[in-house]
Order: sequence, then C-alpha cells, then structure tokens
Amino acid sequence: MSSANADWNGKHVLVTGGAGFIGSHVADVLLARGARVTVFDDFSTGFREFIAPARENLRVVEGDLLDQARIGEAMRGVDFVFHLAANADIKDNLAQPRKCIDQNVVVTQNVLEAMRAAGAREIVFASTGSVYGETDLIPTPENAPFPVQTSLYATSKVAAEGLLTSYALGYGFRAWIFRFVSILGPRYTHGHVMDFWRKLRRDPSRLEVLGNGKQQKSYLNVSDCVAAILVAIDKAREPINIFNLGHGYWIEVDKSIGIITRTLGLSPRLEYGGGERGWVGDSPRILLDTSRIRALGWAPTKSIEESVVETLQFLATHPFSDRRS
Amino acid sequence: MSSANADWNGKHVLVTGGAGFIGSHVADVLLARGARVTVFDDFSTGFREFIAPARENLRVVEGDLLDQARIGEAMRGVDFVFHLAANADIKDNLAQPRKCIDQNVVVTQNVLEAMRAAGAREIVFASTGSVYGETDLIPTPENAPFPVQTSLYATSKVAAEGLLTSYALGYGFRAWIFRFVSILGPRYTHGHVMDFWRKLRRDPSRLEVLGNGKQQKSYLNVSDCVAAILVAIDKAREPINIFNLGHGYWIEVDKSIGIITRTLGLSPRLEYGGGERGWVGDSPRILLDTSRIRALGWAPTKSIEESVVETLQFLATHPFSDRRS
Repeated sequence: MSSANADWNGKHVLVTGGAGFIGSHVADVLLARGARVTVFDDFSTGFREFIAPARENLRVVEGDLLDQARIGEAMRGVDFVFHLAANADIKDNLAQPRKCIDQNVVVTQNVLEAMRAAGAREIVFASTGSVYGETDLIPTPENAPFPVQTSLYATSKVAAEGLLTSYALGYGFRAWIFRFVSILGPRYTHGHVMDFWRKLRRDPSRLEVLGNGKQQKSYLNVSDCVAAILVAIDKAREPINIFNLGHGYWIEVDKSIGIITRTLGLSPRLEYGGGERGWVGDSPRILLDTSRIRALGWAPTKSIEESVVETLQFLATHPFSDRRS
Repeated sequence: MSSANADWNGKHVLVTGGAGFIGSHVADVLLARGARVTVFDDFSTGFREFIAPARENLRVVEGDLLDQARIGEAMRGVDFVFHLAANADIKDNLAQPRKCIDQNVVVTQNVLEAMRAAGAREIVFASTGSVYGETDLIPTPENAPFPVQTSLYATSKVAAEGLLTSYALGYGFRAWIFRFVSILGPRYTHGHVMDFWRKLRRDPSRLEVLGNGKQQKSYLNVSDCVAAILVAIDKAREPINIFNLGHGYWIEVDKSIGIITRTLGLSPRLEYGGGERGWVGDSPRILLDTSRIRALGWAPTKSIEESVVETLQFLATHPFSDRRS
C-alpha cells in the first residue's frame, strides 16, 4: 500500500461532515498521509474537538451545504471529495420529512454542482445498508433484488447514490459509494449505543427498548470502515464503484444491551416497546454481503463486541450528550 | 368491472399534469366514470385543448407544483391523486441537472405533503422502466437486481418512488407505482416519434438518428396504459403496489423509423450519430416483464406498429410542434 499512501500526498481533499464521527477520522488519516484537508461542517452534529489540534494542512470551513455559494467557494482548488455530511436522524425523519430530503438529496446535488464548477471529479459517498429495505436476501449483496424503500432516510440515500452515478456517466465523475451498517468507535455521536447510554445515565434502574430486542444488526468499527474506504479508492477505479461495508456477523439488540449494561455495571429492568421493528422504516435484520470489498484484501480487525465496549469508553470520557440533547 | 367503475362515482380526484398526454386521458376516463376531477397543470407541456370541452365536474387549476401553497389549496377535499406531472426532458437533463430533481423529486414531496395536510391518502405515480438502468435481466421484472442509475431522470423517479413508499409506511398512504415504457397514441407530446416527425417536417430528405438505430424499445398505447392503471387500482390494494407497464415485445429504432417514413410517404437519407445509446443515460434495450399486471387480467389491445401510426395521425392533425419548439 506504500504507493497508495503516496497518492494522497499533496492532494487537496474536501471532507463534508469532516468534524463528525466518520469524517474526522477520514481527515486524520488523510492528513497523516500528506493531504491538504478542508473540513466543511455546520457543527450541528460535529464537534471542534474532533478536528483538534490545528494543523498546517487543515482548513476548517463552517457552513451549511444548502448554501451553494459557500460550498462553491470551499471547493476551489479541491481534487477529491469525501461527502460524509448527512441528516442521520433516521428515527425522527417522519416528524420532519422535508429536512431529510433537503439535507441528503439537495445537499448532495449542491456538492456535485460545486465539484462540476471547480473541476473536481472524484467523490466518496456514505450511503447505507438501509437501501436494501426489508430484503429477504441475507447476507445482502450489492446486486440484491430491487428493494422497496421503507424509510425516508434510505430513500434519500438511494437518490443521492443515483445523483453520483448519473454525474459519473454524464459528466465524467468517478464515484465510490459505500453502503454502511452502523458504525461504532471513538467520536461516536448517535445511534443505539448512544441512546441506551443516555437513557441509563438518566435512570440506571430501567431501560426502554424500541421493538422486541430481537432485531439483528451488524456493526463495524470506524477504523475498519475508514481502512475499507481507502483500500477501495486505491484498488477500485471504475467510474462507479459500489461497496457494502459491514462485519461478517450480526448480534441481537438484546445482546448489545447485555454488553452495555455489563460494561457499565448496571442491571436495569428492560421495558420493550414491542414489535419486530424499533420504528417505522427500521430494518429488523441487517447483514451485508461484503465479499466485494473483501476481495480487495480488506477484512475487519475489531469484533462488534470490542467496538461496543470501545464506544462506551469513549462516551464515558467525552460526555457530549451533556451538551446537546 | 362494473363495481370498479362505480367506485369513482362522486370521488374527488386530483390529476397533476392533467392537461398532458397521459393525464388528460386519465381525466377523461374518470369524468366518464362519474368522478369530480381537478386538473393541476402549469401548461408548460400540457395543452388546454386536451382538457376541452369544459365539463361540470372538471376544475382546472393552473399552477406550479413547486408552489406548495398553490397545490395545498387545490388539494382541499381531494380523495385520490394521480401524480403524472413530471419533467420528462430525459435527453436534456444533463444541461439542467437541478431542474430534473426539483420538478420530479421536490415536487413529488410537495404533492405528498399537500395530501398529508388535506387528509388524502391514495396516490398513483408515473415512474419509468428506466429505473432498471442497463439491466442484464430482460424482460425485466419488478424485483430485478438493484440497478445502478444511469440517468438523472431515472434517479429522480427512483427517489420519488421511495418518497411514496416511505409515506405509505410512515403515514398510512396507499401507493400505486407504474414503471412505464414509452407511451404512444393521441395527444402524444414528446419522445422519439415526435423528434423524428419534427425533423422530417423540417427536411424530408434526411433524418438524423441518435445512436446506431439498433436500440430495442417497447412502447404501449396510452389507452392500454390507462386501462392497466385502473385495473391495478381496482384489484391491487396493498399499501404499496408496483407494476411494470409495457408491451410484450420490442422493436428496433430502425423499424419504427421504417413505419414512420412509410406512413409519411418519405424516403429520407438516414444519418446515424453512432454508438449503442442515443444519449448518455439512454437504456439501449428496454423490455419489461409485465406478468404482474397481466395476472390481474390486463393485456394490451394495440400493437406497437398500430400505435406508431396512430401517433403520426394525431401529429398530422394537431401540429403542436408549430407552437412550441
């Protein structure tokens, strides 16, 4: 991979959502590989701590991606884009159905238009395993049967994927699309571990669980996720490159609750909301077939269990939930 | 079907794009079945002639679906929506990439939000067989492998489909989604027959053909299309109902050129642009598996050849192309 590492040297990379969970890890790795990095973030869910300390090759632009002029300015001179900013309020999208489409679809087109104007043509996009809806094909490969979209979140990601692939064919872009499972690890800012952790801080005696606790989910550590992305960029050079990213197995929500309560030393009473799904549009079983990315030589290095514990350790030492509710 | 016919009696139906090709046929049939019909159209591609004469149960609202207040007013008291308005400038979307997303995605959410506010919950949507991209599975069933989107147009339709299915699951809507091949017949306003016809009116001695003439496409007559939609509404009553609509066979572009030139009595010199695709994002081979809609008792009644001729007869007697270019 030494030649690959060299490839980033001197490149100017823009990372949207670069102060967020995955984005800040991407920024760190690229800086370490010699890239100039512009982080574009509105700090609605990102944190300045995640991109500290200041570094010579790091520029931070605070802005809203709905502001075309702002992203247009930031894009000048950029060679490569990681578009990781997103509205990931999956459970709450039905309360604000426009926000999800604006922040995930309209914004993605804004980024692509800014790239088109600036002459940048290579883009990585964070999609989601939820695009497969409630597929019967598990583990789910990238060419699973055409799914019915069950959530606004997945709909918005499918639309954004289509924008990337249309721009690839129409304007000569190169696109890498990653369909993630949930990601865990340091700088984790939202998701079920956060939800459980917050609830238990408020009341350690009981834990409300959405659904029946039997939903089966796969998770991936953020370090494994970023490693997979960089391998794909090195080795997959088609105009359109689509990869599932996830672990090779899943665990039940009940099992991750067990890890969480054990790690925290608590024995809460579990109160189940009931039903197969945690919320409308929840995919009760997610396990992605990751043969495609594994064929490029990548494999996860951390177990799901390790990642849950690592996430809790991060939350315990960085209680971000106290600042934002 | 007598009970089905009765179902429309007294219903208040809103048809977006109701002054357009397919929409005006839908309006006619629903009015004949006793419905009250509100046509919502911006008349950018629709024609007042298509919804003449004035009828007691027909209301016409001229407006832009990007104007949420306007569609909100028109939606009051509506029971059922046919959302047929669309930007169908497939070939030219790359010149105005935002317009396609605004007019097909943002607008669809505007319609759904207006329905949500007004209490309307049933919606028919005109999608496209292009959503299958360049699939290898031909004829293509509704659950073909998850396609890569090759055009902004198909991307926008996939996104709109996802909005409908998310609203069905999230807010209790019932949705009928139809993935069409190209539609031919009276009131035809755009597409390859129009393009060829216009070119030949300008210069009968030569005909420029996009691609190599070997693209294989299926077509359906508008009367068969509307009949299929009504059968599906009667018989398919799931929250989400997705149907391919098309003919059981395809013809080469060269063959439809033959029908056109023969019908017009012309022998132009054919000048091929070359390449497998007529334009970036063109699907060179489209044949949909329509077993699902056929299982409900529907079958096309007019051949592709008949439909091409019928379309030319319409164009000869209604030279709309003289008014708009």
